[in-house]
Amino acid sequence: MSLIAKTPAPPYYAVIFSSQRNEDLEGYAATAERMLELAAQQAGFLGVESVREELGITVSYWSDLQSIKSWKAQAEHREAQKMGMEKWYSIYKTRIALVERDYGN
Amino acid sequence: MSLIAKTPAPPYYAVIFSSQRNEDLEGYAATAERMLELAAQQAGFLGVESVREELGITVSYWSDLQSIKSWKAQAEHREAQKMGMEKWYSIYKTRIALVERDYGN
Repeated sequence: MSLIAKTPAPPYYAVIFSSQRNEDLEGYAATAERMLELAAQQAGFLGVESVREELGITVSYWSDLQSIKSWKAQAEHREAQKMGMEKWYSIYKTRIALVERDYGN
Repeated sequence: MSLIAKTPAPPYYAVIFSSQRNEDLEGYAATAERMLELAAQQAGFLGVESVREELGITVSYWSDLQSIKSWKAQAEHREAQKMGMEKWYSIYKTRIALVERDYGN
């Protein structure tokens, strides 16, 4: 089964979220799963790829910047971001990037 | 220890490489390690983040497109790419993206 997002031809946007977690992960798993589910329902969502070891990388793909902005401001997502920043993540970085070119098999 | 790349202020480029592997991984680990080491020596290299479960995501960061192009054409890297495409990866996708904005803690 392919875990690689079926994105359309560029240009489109990628949000690269890199994070390392704290030890207390109470509530994390359910929220992470819910956010993936909720993101997929947003306008402009194109797909997501997510992997975690000690470092976690989640790349979500979006049709345009406005969709990313709307998702960031979504109420339930805002709550999750707050928990992430205050409790779950020891360090994190979000990068918003315009995909100009892609290729693969 | 932070595994998140210490990138400069945007703009800069990200190469998002997503892949799933085949079962025969002979030679893979040594080559993967060597490529990370070699990438870090290239002009324009800014950092790398890499995670693998069933899906692997490696994001490398670069100052400009020319640096990405030079790295793609580097002789030892070309050999590795060939092995990856012919032998190690069942499915892969490379996305080249301009990081416009970033934030974190």
